[in-house]
Amino acid sequence: MSYTELKERVYQANMQLPALDLVVFTWGNVSEVDREAGVFAIKPSGVEYDKLKPEDIVVVSLETGEKVSGDLNPSSDTATHLVLYREFPNIGGVVHTHSPWAVSWAQATRFLPAYGTTHADTFYGNVPCTRKLTDQEIAEAYEKNTGLVIVETFKNGQIDPDAVPGVLVAGHGPFTWGANCFKAVENSKVLEECCKMAVRTEQINPDINRIEQGLLDKHYLRKHGKDAYYGQ
Amino acid sequence: MSYTELKERVYQANMQLPALDLVVFTWGNVSEVDREAGVFAIKPSGVEYDKLKPEDIVVVSLETGEKVSGDLNPSSDTATHLVLYREFPNIGGVVHTHSPWAVSWAQATRFLPAYGTTHADTFYGNVPCTRKLTDQEIAEAYEKNTGLVIVETFKNGQIDPDAVPGVLVAGHGPFTWGANCFKAVENSKVLEECCKMAVRTEQINPDINRIEQGLLDKHYLRKHGKDAYYGQ
Amino acid sequence: MSYTELKERVYQANMQLPALDLVVFTWGNVSEVDREAGVFAIKPSGVEYDKLKPEDIVVVSLETGEKVSGDLNPSSDTATHLVLYREFPNIGGVVHTHSPWAVSWAQATRFLPAYGTTHADTFYGNVPCTRKLTDQEIAEAYEKNTGLVIVETFKNGQIDPDAVPGVLVAGHGPFTWGANCFKAVENSKVLEECCKMAVRTEQINPDINRIEQGLLDKHYLRKHGKDAYYGQ
Amino acid sequence: MSYTELKERVYQANMQLPALDLVVFTWGNVSEVDREAGVFAIKPSGVEYDKLKPEDIVVVSLETGEKVSGDLNPSSDTATHLVLYREFPNIGGVVHTHSPWAVSWAQATRFLPAYGTTHADTFYGNVPCTRKLTDQEIAEAYEKNTGLVIVETFKNGQIDPDAVPGVLVAGHGPFTWGANCFKAVENSKVLEECCKMAVRTEQINPDINRIEQGLLDKHYLRKHGKDAYYGQ
Repeated sequence: MSYTELKERVYQANMQLPALDLVVFTWGNVSEVDREAGVFAIKPSGVEYDKLKPEDIVVVSLETGEKVSGDLNPSSDTATHLVLYREFPNIGGVVHTHSPWAVSWAQATRFLPAYGTTHADTFYGNVPCTRKLTDQEIAEAYEKNTGLVIVETFKNGQIDPDAVPGVLVAGHGPFTWGANCFKAVENSKVLEECCKMAVRTEQINPDINRIEQGLLDKHYLRKHGKDAYYGQ
Repeated sequence: MSYTELKERVYQANMQLPALDLVVFTWGNVSEVDREAGVFAIKPSGVEYDKLKPEDIVVVSLETGEKVSGDLNPSSDTATHLVLYREFPNIGGVVHTHSPWAVSWAQATRFLPAYGTTHADTFYGNVPCTRKLTDQEIAEAYEKNTGLVIVETFKNGQIDPDAVPGVLVAGHGPFTWGANCFKAVENSKVLEECCKMAVRTEQINPDINRIEQGLLDKHYLRKHGKDAYYGQ
Repeated sequence: MSYTELKERVYQANMQLPALDLVVFTWGNVSEVDREAGVFAIKPSGVEYDKLKPEDIVVVSLETGEKVSGDLNPSSDTATHLVLYREFPNIGGVVHTHSPWAVSWAQATRFLPAYGTTHADTFYGNVPCTRKLTDQEIAEAYEKNTGLVIVETFKNGQIDPDAVPGVLVAGHGPFTWGANCFKAVENSKVLEECCKMAVRTEQINPDINRIEQGLLDKHYLRKHGKDAYYGQ
Repeated sequence: MSYTELKERVYQANMQLPALDLVVFTWGNVSEVDREAGVFAIKPSGVEYDKLKPEDIVVVSLETGEKVSGDLNPSSDTATHLVLYREFPNIGGVVHTHSPWAVSWAQATRFLPAYGTTHADTFYGNVPCTRKLTDQEIAEAYEKNTGLVIVETFKNGQIDPDAVPGVLVAGHGPFTWGANCFKAVENSKVLEECCKMAVRTEQINPDINRIEQGLLDKHYLRKHGKDAYYGQ
């Protein structure tokens, strides 16, 4: 894929964030990786969505983390995206937003329980919340360490990032990923909807438990894997 | 009614779901039955609403459950619609969505109490919530058994599906129905609004009870049955 | 004012309800009185807003309650409007909706406390909630008795309907009024906003009290009465 | 800057309020100061946003508080803006709205805790809530005293108004400010979003504490001050 094509895709995916009510102002960024070319493309830092153009998208080396194409500075969260692409080898796109329901769970430092089939259709289990970063981690390499604490959360919790394509970063907000940048955006919206419905589910019935494993399996596996039968 | 006409109606009814803020992505489906022709028409599985066309709608046999017209796979929930058309002989249209307030009640596994006249105008009593499906029911014939547990809920609760045209499926979400596909969509929106207001009603007054039978009767019967006087 | 002019005004005011997100479907109606002519004009029953035309508006006699102009049936709530025009001699317009936050308070059968200056700018004190109607009142003359219980609420509570231009009807929803139909619609929106903010105010601080009388006086009186100085 | 240019800027900033869903009707006003010219420009009182024109904006003397240009009466909150410009010497724009989430906190008379990085990106600490005004303060010079109680809140709390560019006025609503009128509007939207997410954060986890100082420092200082690296 040419840089031009990659930038165009990443531009289109970024523009879906305001269309899906996931961002206000500049509170989000989408990237997509081209593993063969050894680069990923990402939104520039602090550029308003209604002024963003495809040629503003920045291309960054997967090896060095340095900019290889583009006039603007890449997103301040670039180092987080870099860690995720390096450590989660199957993912193709990454999204970060400050979408309000997911941020509310992240600020509350709670994982999102799998309360229903809407959740199970995309996330094969609870969506975890990271531990807080230490002052040293924040001071030394904040954005990189945000990526590392995400990876640690999945390793320590023995969670497969391909089956649970998202996380809540404590005190901050959600990151999601997927096979490509468009799928990562879709997962970001699903996470926001599930976060919203989970708050209300607990309000309606404070004693509710997560759904049974059988129903979780059924909905996840009718959409994912070799026996999937949803869609065309 | 020709298949073309039926498909056009079902297409139009499906397109009302995003217009009424009842779905994101592909999270919903509408069908309508032609009992004389022995078929019903339903949305294809996993097709985005902004790409859906009338000719994409799939026609399915009421007798065999098999596709009789259309190039695409029907909704993965087709078997649930089929059961409802067979068991509820007066209904003409069925809607399933993941509308957020109704899903929140379904995930909380609580029936929706009749708290006011907005509810009573459409639902002549509480809207029930099904029991959970067993692992065996999920594994053997999930979508068909979803229909059967809805039917069981109305039979065991001695509820008339023509007077209470909707249900919450535990851990999943709402199904509604009506005289035709457009009325079923309207009932889906009414259910969503009533679910939203019921959460807030309980928040404002945790000790509230459902409305009195006299007010429930008045509002339901001024819109339904031989003594109705609402409308033109 | 000619019937044509009155119908046009009432049509315009009705169309503000969906524009202000106060109604879905046909869940609302606006009327305006011409006291010199002894009539009021009101939305027809059950007509969708996107199909409503000025000539559909129905004119009703203030003396007999009978239709004097128009081809359609007037709103099923006409008898309630009639009582309000007869008993509240200074009002010029009446609005009824099922706007969700106000309905939630009405279903909770609680009056709306005056929690802040947004409330005080329009409502000079708490917005009352009626008692429930008896079965006999519902059976005999439901819509008329809805009007009478509103009047009773203001009389028994010694509340001036010109200073508190709205009410919550228990188990049902809000009615508002004003100097004309447009002011009544504005008051309907203000009530909805105040109902929304009051729920959240109580959630943020369950021990909160209504605002002090001095602040209530200041805000109401800087917008109403002879010493008002808000606006042009 | 000419009065014409100043009026045009203040007009544009005012029009952002409805676009950002911060106001209904006339519930808000924006101003901007020209300290060299010794004036500030502000929205006229009670004019609907869809009828507002650049030439309607009113110019007021920073010394006398009197109108120096414009045909209409300035906002009834002009005296509050005047105090803020006089007492906070670095600010260039001021915004007041009745945005619903911020009003809900103001009505609850609670300060807004800094629960996450979205908050920290703009507000370097909790957003304070003023004490209530006394009856005498309300009666004698309500709008001026509203400004003075804001200044008192920052002085007594030893809060830097340049680092925390907003406040909740008890029982009333939010005021925000910034380097110019557009930045003040942006801060008004950020405050509304943070107020919304804070309610939900407390609902999801009633035992949550504000974020750690290290994370607050990191996010505020990567966007503000000499070591900022966010943006272009």
